[in-house]
Amino acid sequence: MLETPTLSQYKTTVDKALTELLNKLTDARSGFSGRASLRLLDSVRYSVEDAGKRIRPTLALLAAEAVLGSDNLKENPAMPAALAIELVHCGSLIHDDLPCMDDDDLRRGKASNHKKFDEATSLLAGDLLLILPIRVLLSEGRDYGIDSWKLSRAALKLSEAISSMICGQALDMDLSTGRLTDGDIDTLTLMQRCKTGALLAASAEIGALLAGADEDCCRLFNSFAHKLGLAFQISDDILDATSSSEVLGKTAGKDDEQNKLTFVKLYGIDSAQALAKELIIEAKQELRQTGLSTDKLELLADYVVSRNY
Amino acid sequence: MLETPTLSQYKTTVDKALTELLNKLTDARSGFSGRASLRLLDSVRYSVEDAGKRIRPTLALLAAEAVLGSDNLKENPAMPAALAIELVHCGSLIHDDLPCMDDDDLRRGKASNHKKFDEATSLLAGDLLLILPIRVLLSEGRDYGIDSWKLSRAALKLSEAISSMICGQALDMDLSTGRLTDGDIDTLTLMQRCKTGALLAASAEIGALLAGADEDCCRLFNSFAHKLGLAFQISDDILDATSSSEVLGKTAGKDDEQNKLTFVKLYGIDSAQALAKELIIEAKQELRQTGLSTDKLELLADYVVSRNY
Repeated sequence: MLETPTLSQYKTTVDKALTELLNKLTDARSGFSGRASLRLLDSVRYSVEDAGKRIRPTLALLAAEAVLGSDNLKENPAMPAALAIELVHCGSLIHDDLPCMDDDDLRRGKASNHKKFDEATSLLAGDLLLILPIRVLLSEGRDYGIDSWKLSRAALKLSEAISSMICGQALDMDLSTGRLTDGDIDTLTLMQRCKTGALLAASAEIGALLAGADEDCCRLFNSFAHKLGLAFQISDDILDATSSSEVLGKTAGKDDEQNKLTFVKLYGIDSAQALAKELIIEAKQELRQTGLSTDKLELLADYVVSRNY
Repeated sequence: MLETPTLSQYKTTVDKALTELLNKLTDARSGFSGRASLRLLDSVRYSVEDAGKRIRPTLALLAAEAVLGSDNLKENPAMPAALAIELVHCGSLIHDDLPCMDDDDLRRGKASNHKKFDEATSLLAGDLLLILPIRVLLSEGRDYGIDSWKLSRAALKLSEAISSMICGQALDMDLSTGRLTDGDIDTLTLMQRCKTGALLAASAEIGALLAGADEDCCRLFNSFAHKLGLAFQISDDILDATSSSEVLGKTAGKDDEQNKLTFVKLYGIDSAQALAKELIIEAKQELRQTGLSTDKLELLADYVVSRNY
């Protein structure tokens, strides 16, 4: 992802920081060492390292830069949150792929976690990646010198976002198993707002918060990222319908096969595409209301609807 | 549990507070409402309400009372943490019972969560009960007027304890699937220290912390509860070997059937019982070092090795 040179460096930075973080966590002195969890940690590493577009952490880092008014900060105060949020995202994908959920064998171009390991290990790896991020945020954040007030607010927002994400996945299961049969655009929008939107919105909002933004500004970043999140999901639906598993790195055509309620199903591809573009315009309007310099965030927003995987 | 009148009121208080908390969370204004998660919330309620001995929250409440030097506080500052920790415990039981883990049909005298609902719902209910407690601790704690410094420390300790618990469960799986074949007393003790001890220790330590205890005092409460936790686990192993499913409310004789490494297996019943009693004596010594009045905590410690379920 983030093919533009301006943005690709954020992915590189995040990849490197995640590996360092995992090394630190598995270091003998951190309390995670020992034979107790070797397989578990292998499973965590498998799903966290060298994988993914890193959109959420990039969003958090760019929001903080916008608030602080400087690019490529060496010590970006949003880094602990950025890493924490990416861990959550990786964990949610592990659970989503499990046989009792979406039952998917392919993720990010390789075997899904439970195909590579086993269901019990993947269940626990996903569990760990839901709660460990709170530890990462609070502990690394303290090391970054972030004050307790900001950290406890950020942890509260992150825990709320993760809770929403889980509720969204539950609604998705309700819809795909036919327990909810009258799915319409409102249901779909609510489901995606929880499932995808909440964590993206938390990324931007927490990034801004840790950089010192006031409440109004945080709210604008949240609203920006919610619109971005919906556009992201619509483009995901389009890609599922139009692309190949090879390009996507996950099973294509799955929505149709599982008879999922999607934006493509409700609107058709062309109208869905138009809706996504409209949402990006609206998202940028939210950004501009902050009065900050947000060029890179706008670039990221454009990427979300132009990407091909 | 807590058959003594002195302690049983804590279970009553916790039961009532948990129901009020769940009502508040599912209230229309809290963000968890809507059809999105009705089944999910039913599943959460099923495993949280009217169930369990409530040892962990009682431990947290009693630790806070010991530090504050007053009994039956109307507004116990440890209450947000006490509820949060019990939610975590309930969630961990849901995941432990899943088919890919211990595969158990019976829990707390009724069908286990996935037998009553379905695997996907139980997976998500367990997920929610791992992260929602952080929200509960931080949000309810703020409403209780607890300062950010204490809250962020408590949330960090809780997230560390949950992470340890998950690592402990992973080691348990390693042992019971034969991936670790040379399990000895050190391995078993480490596994139980993570799986059971960490959350019990966090209960007492966070209770003390929220009541204003200093670091040394918190450490003593932690150490007390770790010893208590090990004694608790040993008595659990003994009950599994000697009691019935009817009395226990969960499947008895499971350890032997699944060829689990237990204290009974390593020591035999009599020596295991003696070890548990010795640990309770040591645990009480830790308590007394705090210089506080800890009668009720000692009563709780005695209960742990004398209970019959």
